[in-house]
Amino acid sequence: MQPEFAMQLALDAAWRYQGVTYPNPAVGCTVCGPRGEILAVAAHKRAGGPHAEVWALKEAYSLLSGDAAIEPLVDSAAIHDYLRRHHGGIFRDCTLYVTLEPCSHHGKTPSCALLIRELHPEKVVIAHEDPNAEAAGGAALLEAAGIVVERGLLRDAAADLLLPFVCWQKERFVVFKWAQRLDGSVDGGTVSSDASRSYVHAMRDRCDLLVIGGNTVREDRPTLDARLVGGKSPDVLIYSRSDRFDRTIPLFTVEGRRVMVSDSLADIAGYRNVLVEGGPGMFEACRELADCHLAFVAPATGGTIPFTKSDERFRLMHTAALGSDLMLWLKRE
Amino acid sequence: MQPEFAMQLALDAAWRYQGVTYPNPAVGCTVCGPRGEILAVAAHKRAGGPHAEVWALKEAYSLLSGDAAIEPLVDSAAIHDYLRRHHGGIFRDCTLYVTLEPCSHHGKTPSCALLIRELHPEKVVIAHEDPNAEAAGGAALLEAAGIVVERGLLRDAAADLLLPFVCWQKERFVVFKWAQRLDGSVDGGTVSSDASRSYVHAMRDRCDLLVIGGNTVREDRPTLDARLVGGKSPDVLIYSRSDRFDRTIPLFTVEGRRVMVSDSLADIAGYRNVLVEGGPGMFEACRELADCHLAFVAPATGGTIPFTKSDERFRLMHTAALGSDLMLWLKRE
Repeated sequence: MQPEFAMQLALDAAWRYQGVTYPNPAVGCTVCGPRGEILAVAAHKRAGGPHAEVWALKEAYSLLSGDAAIEPLVDSAAIHDYLRRHHGGIFRDCTLYVTLEPCSHHGKTPSCALLIRELHPEKVVIAHEDPNAEAAGGAALLEAAGIVVERGLLRDAAADLLLPFVCWQKERFVVFKWAQRLDGSVDGGTVSSDASRSYVHAMRDRCDLLVIGGNTVREDRPTLDARLVGGKSPDVLIYSRSDRFDRTIPLFTVEGRRVMVSDSLADIAGYRNVLVEGGPGMFEACRELADCHLAFVAPATGGTIPFTKSDERFRLMHTAALGSDLMLWLKRE
Repeated sequence: MQPEFAMQLALDAAWRYQGVTYPNPAVGCTVCGPRGEILAVAAHKRAGGPHAEVWALKEAYSLLSGDAAIEPLVDSAAIHDYLRRHHGGIFRDCTLYVTLEPCSHHGKTPSCALLIRELHPEKVVIAHEDPNAEAAGGAALLEAAGIVVERGLLRDAAADLLLPFVCWQKERFVVFKWAQRLDGSVDGGTVSSDASRSYVHAMRDRCDLLVIGGNTVREDRPTLDARLVGGKSPDVLIYSRSDRFDRTIPLFTVEGRRVMVSDSLADIAGYRNVLVEGGPGMFEACRELADCHLAFVAPATGGTIPFTKSDERFRLMHTAALGSDLMLWLKRE
């Protein structure tokens, strides 16, 4: 198999969890055998859970060794430990393709670079270096141990994948999310499929602030929680010139949540992972603020109000089908 | 690796050539080794060229055997012959995942089922049975030789992939293609990227009739050839109530092409692979005629004329990035 194909599989796997790995980056990993055959493809799914490399090495070990005892393990430290004790050099001719430099520090989970050094594959191909100074150094650590390290394969694509992480490492990541039909319309009833709405709930569960327009609150009387995934309810900033709201609207009565009403988006200060959900008005208000845009597109037509009337150009970072809808990650240019 | 993952890779590979394999179906194939590792993923690319199974088996053989002598071969009969003479039972523990039942007849290329029977993998997983009576029987032939055959994995997805083929086998396939921006707009200059336009030229090269509206001809003065891929120029049906056209418009002076002007789409009779390119007017005219729809979506906004003002619902059959655009294969519901 071509190295690009292996790395693209890792990237695609990672994008499936984009937006829900906070405060960690979305990362993917493919493990190939000595002749380039693909043994495993995996992604990091949630902070605190195993990193992409660990899931992929677990799967590859199980396949190569036939040892099914590793299969029930889901705790990162437990998988690290099992692999360390049982690998028996089984990865010595393998190549790992990782979208991000393996972490060298011991955070919520043990260091991937130390594990990989011990398992000692022949080669590690890294799409993008770690922009986090605390975690960087993984590549050098592997090279010093005699593992071949190649850098920069599909780096631009990996940089897109890493964009949210880079933003919240610096200060803050703001994603503007909207739902539209194929004709750009946003009105006339529910637009998105259940799968799209569940994905947004998973993002709400992971973000620390949800920003929404005052009109949406008045008209839709939303709860703005993450009930579809059993998740937490983020703080809410209602962007509105007036602070007169019917306080029986469900979003106000969620326990443990802070609700702010403000006519200034500067009030997102102090929050690092911000999800803005909105229509045409919020799109305009967040034009410069948003680090990237996320569109859920229903393959239908029939509304009358477009999500924007202005001229915009985006770069398509990633596309995938999600339930019956289309999910587009976009970078405004 | 999961069987679904292997089959999905075969489906995705096949979709990359959807619309350009006529009169053959778009088909994909993944070859897995004894432990489920992925050895090769390939697609059928053009009629007369090797089938998906042959490309995938060639790649898997090269990987498993280390015999590079097969690599320069691109002729289907030559690859068949080389594999027959050199396989040495190397596939005996392998599994093939094919989106379509391997063909049992010798057409432009030798029969895949006979080749597979001789190479004798352990198992062949088939997403969709062959709807072509002339080519069917491949699965039974493999089973009779003691190869395990499993049917129906991701069959619905494989049926979508097969839709054009089923249509032109019966009588005729009509695809309606348009280019729009993310806001549904079609006006205001070139919408699509070069990559999208090249894909459309490749489809023009393979279709036998291109249908276009009279206004487009008058306003754009197009050539309607396949120059971006060095391909042939299909016959053209101009759908128009008036037959008054400036005959110096380039499309009229292409040699060897028939140009019809008609106010009836019934004049597509006799053509089996029909590409309609159009805007809002043609979309309406072809609503019932089109077997599926193909949208090239530029990630931009800013036009004023939507591709349709009517209520439509589609099923998303496939999505992929193509250059800077998005390509959507849709089935109207």
